[in-house]
Amino acid sequence: MKKVFFAIISVFTTLVMWANGYVVNPNSTITFTIKAPKADTVKVAGSFSRGGLEMIKDDSGVWTVTTDTIEADMQYYWFVVDGVKTIDPENPFTVRDEDMLFNILLMPGEQSDKYNVADVPHGDVAAVWYDSPTMKMNRRMIIYTPAEYLSNPDKRYPVLYLLHGMGGDEGAWVGLGRTPSILDNMIASGEIDPMIVVMPNGNVIQEAAPGVTSEGLYNTSGSRSKGEFNLYEKSFADIVNYVDSNYRTLADARHRAIAGLSMGGGHAWRVDLNYPEMFEYVGMFSSAFGWNGQKTVGAEFYKDEVTNRFENNQLPSLYWIAIGAEDFLYDNNSDYRKILDDLNVKYEYYESAGGHSWSNWRLYLTKFLPMLFK
Amino acid sequence: MKKVFFAIISVFTTLVMWANGYVVNPNSTITFTIKAPKADTVKVAGSFSRGGLEMIKDDSGVWTVTTDTIEADMQYYWFVVDGVKTIDPENPFTVRDEDMLFNILLMPGEQSDKYNVADVPHGDVAAVWYDSPTMKMNRRMIIYTPAEYLSNPDKRYPVLYLLHGMGGDEGAWVGLGRTPSILDNMIASGEIDPMIVVMPNGNVIQEAAPGVTSEGLYNTSGSRSKGEFNLYEKSFADIVNYVDSNYRTLADARHRAIAGLSMGGGHAWRVDLNYPEMFEYVGMFSSAFGWNGQKTVGAEFYKDEVTNRFENNQLPSLYWIAIGAEDFLYDNNSDYRKILDDLNVKYEYYESAGGHSWSNWRLYLTKFLPMLFK
Repeated sequence: MKKVFFAIISVFTTLVMWANGYVVNPNSTITFTIKAPKADTVKVAGSFSRGGLEMIKDDSGVWTVTTDTIEADMQYYWFVVDGVKTIDPENPFTVRDEDMLFNILLMPGEQSDKYNVADVPHGDVAAVWYDSPTMKMNRRMIIYTPAEYLSNPDKRYPVLYLLHGMGGDEGAWVGLGRTPSILDNMIASGEIDPMIVVMPNGNVIQEAAPGVTSEGLYNTSGSRSKGEFNLYEKSFADIVNYVDSNYRTLADARHRAIAGLSMGGGHAWRVDLNYPEMFEYVGMFSSAFGWNGQKTVGAEFYKDEVTNRFENNQLPSLYWIAIGAEDFLYDNNSDYRKILDDLNVKYEYYESAGGHSWSNWRLYLTKFLPMLFK
Repeated sequence: MKKVFFAIISVFTTLVMWANGYVVNPNSTITFTIKAPKADTVKVAGSFSRGGLEMIKDDSGVWTVTTDTIEADMQYYWFVVDGVKTIDPENPFTVRDEDMLFNILLMPGEQSDKYNVADVPHGDVAAVWYDSPTMKMNRRMIIYTPAEYLSNPDKRYPVLYLLHGMGGDEGAWVGLGRTPSILDNMIASGEIDPMIVVMPNGNVIQEAAPGVTSEGLYNTSGSRSKGEFNLYEKSFADIVNYVDSNYRTLADARHRAIAGLSMGGGHAWRVDLNYPEMFEYVGMFSSAFGWNGQKTVGAEFYKDEVTNRFENNQLPSLYWIAIGAEDFLYDNNSDYRKILDDLNVKYEYYESAGGHSWSNWRLYLTKFLPMLFK
């Protein structure tokens, strides 16, 4: 009922106020429109269609297309008008990913309702700067504290460290990951207990996200894989130290989790190798195992290091590997799982449909969170 | 030298990597380019040209135009390709203002250097939620704490409350106002002492900025002037109470300032009328004096209230009125100044060139800050 009502309102709004934009239809398709009377071809492309869907022009110069059924998820899109990439002039909501900007929308549904800003208590989100003596830099990270944090001045909280992938930065899990909303909603529903979430910048040569560093409004390409290999992972004690010093944390391994996606999954993996006593919960989402600072050489390359870690130190309470069946890193993950199997290391494995996508990483976060701090 | 070097790098980068984008030339003009081979007309519009500058196509389908000299300031722009508004596909840095999105760039210079993220210690920026019993809402605001805040756990700080205008929200002074950079830079240069800056949401019916409320990714028009008149101003004690409870503030009038732009200047004015003992520093930037919840009826309408406030309570240490010579509210401001003159109320007056613009509001903030907490 709510959904139908929303659709009616949207159609009404569209007819009255908008020439462009999008409408979520009751049958879970989306109708996109954009006014471009002089264009010869217009497409809409995005998370539901990489190549783009051809749009049709009416007599008033408004282009329209209705998609197939679209998954309940955060979707992103853009228009291509006569070959020029164009943000929807009627939708001011965008997310930046590296040097790409695209519009976002939320297809309603059970899973994506977790990503929506709902009428529940909201945690605070702070962009903070910490000193890293190891990296000899002042660096930026984003920290989520649960809604109840300030009204419980004597209570201490567990901490999840959540790491972005290549091309991302400290804002990735906020913007694309919808982490504050996921935490707000899952805490409010009782699925998880309140926790602090720390989202650092994982790029070795980058003090902060593009646009908020002393490099100014610089173009974002090129900083991805530069810098001393393993330096960030080794510096992780600087991050944990800052958080434990400035927030009311439960400052022991049983109340610390680390997880990351892609490159960040590799970071989580290597931080655990560097600091085997620091985290009782390790999550590797679509991880690149065996990145050597230049390319992915495979987990086999690090077999001795892995063997050594599990022979000499306790296995974390949760060692969680998640990957999509279509992910280009699927074999890389299988190889690492085989190493763990050979070593008789117990881990949890979650395989989803799909590939190397934020759709999966948001899903993995919602699966990972309820297993923490038990 | 630095500027020339920057320009050389930019040209080089443009030739090698970009088909589109912009280049800041050494003579303080900007060359814009965008590839649109099929278009018949392309313009670039923005803060330097509302109507837009016609661009010229070369044989490869790349459109170019070089502007006149452009002021050292944050500038915003967009392209119009065959009538369709288009964000620069090569510049991922944008700011949202109400339901408009546009690209930003910084023209270097003495004043705009204050707006740049420089290599100085950075303060933290937190989006927090506070309860307003007066408004019966949980509401969002953004709080800047100076870089030294966490390393001085016993030190208390003065607070500036900084209010946005109509159509804006708690993010306006961060994105368009460049407030965190202005504070970082002016603290680092010694022009001002460290302070906390609190940027609340001033829209009566809006708990938070569009996109981060339980209304979801809703279109932003229409919430501007709705809701009970003067309710937000009356609720200001809720905000101050939250800040004094959760931050290390110097919690007295001598260490509290309030300022706002346009509607927010009217808010600052009325908060002072409602709470004459709360602030020793009041700044009204391009203020609308005499808004009655529906329209601007003029300060004369509130003459009794103003007379009463200054007859019965002390004048703040600084009562600062700033307006541009071309501002549509110029006469409205002159009328209010005449009321103050008639009452023999001492105030400071700053008149700039230009009109009702962020260019002036950023300037006013840099003029207002050094006068505070003396």
